[in-house]
Amino acid sequence: MNPAELVHILYLVAIVAEAMTAALAAGRRQMDWVGVALLGSITALGGGSVRDVLLGRHPLSWVEHPSYLLITGGAALATIALARQMPHLRRVFLFLDAVGLVVFTVIGCNVAIALDMPVVIVIAAGMITGCVGGVLRDMLCADIPLLFRAELYATVSVVTSLVYLGGQRLGFPHDLVMLSAMAVGLALRLLALRFGWSMPKFVYTESLH
Amino acid sequence: MNPAELVHILYLVAIVAEAMTAALAAGRRQMDWVGVALLGSITALGGGSVRDVLLGRHPLSWVEHPSYLLITGGAALATIALARQMPHLRRVFLFLDAVGLVVFTVIGCNVAIALDMPVVIVIAAGMITGCVGGVLRDMLCADIPLLFRAELYATVSVVTSLVYLGGQRLGFPHDLVMLSAMAVGLALRLLALRFGWSMPKFVYTESLH
Amino acid sequence: MNPAELVHILYLVAIVAEAMTAALAAGRRQMDWVGVALLGSITALGGGSVRDVLLGRHPLSWVEHPSYLLITGGAALATIALARQMPHLRRVFLFLDAVGLVVFTVIGCNVAIALDMPVVIVIAAGMITGCVGGVLRDMLCADIPLLFRAELYATVSVVTSLVYLGGQRLGFPHDLVMLSAMAVGLALRLLALRFGWSMPKFVYTESLH
Repeated sequence: MNPAELVHILYLVAIVAEAMTAALAAGRRQMDWVGVALLGSITALGGGSVRDVLLGRHPLSWVEHPSYLLITGGAALATIALARQMPHLRRVFLFLDAVGLVVFTVIGCNVAIALDMPVVIVIAAGMITGCVGGVLRDMLCADIPLLFRAELYATVSVVTSLVYLGGQRLGFPHDLVMLSAMAVGLALRLLALRFGWSMPKFVYTESLH
Repeated sequence: MNPAELVHILYLVAIVAEAMTAALAAGRRQMDWVGVALLGSITALGGGSVRDVLLGRHPLSWVEHPSYLLITGGAALATIALARQMPHLRRVFLFLDAVGLVVFTVIGCNVAIALDMPVVIVIAAGMITGCVGGVLRDMLCADIPLLFRAELYATVSVVTSLVYLGGQRLGFPHDLVMLSAMAVGLALRLLALRFGWSMPKFVYTESLH
Repeated sequence: MNPAELVHILYLVAIVAEAMTAALAAGRRQMDWVGVALLGSITALGGGSVRDVLLGRHPLSWVEHPSYLLITGGAALATIALARQMPHLRRVFLFLDAVGLVVFTVIGCNVAIALDMPVVIVIAAGMITGCVGGVLRDMLCADIPLLFRAELYATVSVVTSLVYLGGQRLGFPHDLVMLSAMAVGLALRLLALRFGWSMPKFVYTESLH
């Protein structure tokens, strides 16, 4: 298995994991089965879709590979059957969610690099791919996106991108750099979860209007 | 009047009906007249717009036919004048909303078929065209989308698409199949409204975070 | 300094002002620093991005000029340091926000005119550019968009576009017309703020469903 194959397999694992955690969010809001399947697909595939729409890159991944729609919708529905086991799998899903974040980030960077985008846009493409799915999930649940309020989620994406781009700039082999960037991002995310690290909050109480 | 003309006329009826029901949603949240017109246009034209943006198909319908913006914004504003009559027209609007759902679905399928999309994407294009307008309306009202919580809305769209695609695959004449698919979808939606059919809900009470 | 340069400088002032007011909205919801930077960039650059995505125009402005991402994210973060001064700058920011609205509107009109769009789409492009950033900000804060509920915001955008298009149609010099349109729109917005002008509201209390 070469690194490109590994990334593809991790991508499939990641979209399944994202769809399943979105299904739990749907269940907490008592959505019906259709809502569960839709929220799962939108969360898992939304980040890459928004990235491609903003970059004007067509076809979108799920338009080219319609099986991604079936995989993510199916994974979300399977979560309903597995609901009683899910609390015991909490740590597994937090781990897979972290894997998804770094894999999505690296894939997003690669898309922008292939389009000859400047560094800032490569990092932005990684962050959009990694984080926007969860933002759409929270917007569709009428919540303020978790990304804006908690955890090092976006920060992990930026660090992963910086290690990936920096390592390539320094001339290290591509595959080694890619795997290292994902490992560093994953470690940072797991440490943040373990020790409750978060960004400082901005608290402003005056009303402008 | 040939079937293509019928579909176009039903499309115009449908965007007017969607704009007017969106105007009532705006009135329930005490939006101002500008908000009423904007919410009406976005709800009526949003499904087709999102479909075309995701498929990379330009120009969007309202960019090509700017009159659609005026028709939907105008219909939403007219609703303000007709507000006292609206409660008596409740059944009429539920019927027109159901017509809109199946007409939007068939139009969305046709757009994807014309782009040589695979079956799963044709069904997705129908569902996006039929359902996303209402999702945008609910998001702009800061509500969890009704689509995710109630009724057979998305299911009716999928059934309509399946009858439409299946009938064509079996070699029946196109126009007959199209009208039959719309009739089946409309009947299913009206029966669901009449008998309160809905999809089962997924209720999950554990917190993952 | 010619008028095109003036518009560009006003554009930069406007995206900074929009990012800073979005940062205050983020602080009112106790978002973290990452959320502040993201909400600032999305609010300041979202209107132009949605316009370009809907019109199928690529690359987006911030993809072509990645410095816009750094400027807006940086301005939002700088707001955290300046938070204690912000209440005293309330009037300054309301003024800069009004400048932003008319500048964004004129820029949006020019984009659509360059694409040979019909008048209705030119006005819509101006309104989307001027108003959608704030709508995205409110949606990401899980609020009903202020645009739909209050103030003459969208109306100011339409009036600015009408003066701009009307003046050109009447054969006045382009730069004079552009500056006049911005001055009329700015005056209308400031008068609306001063005297509390707003559009009438539509209040509807019957439930359709």
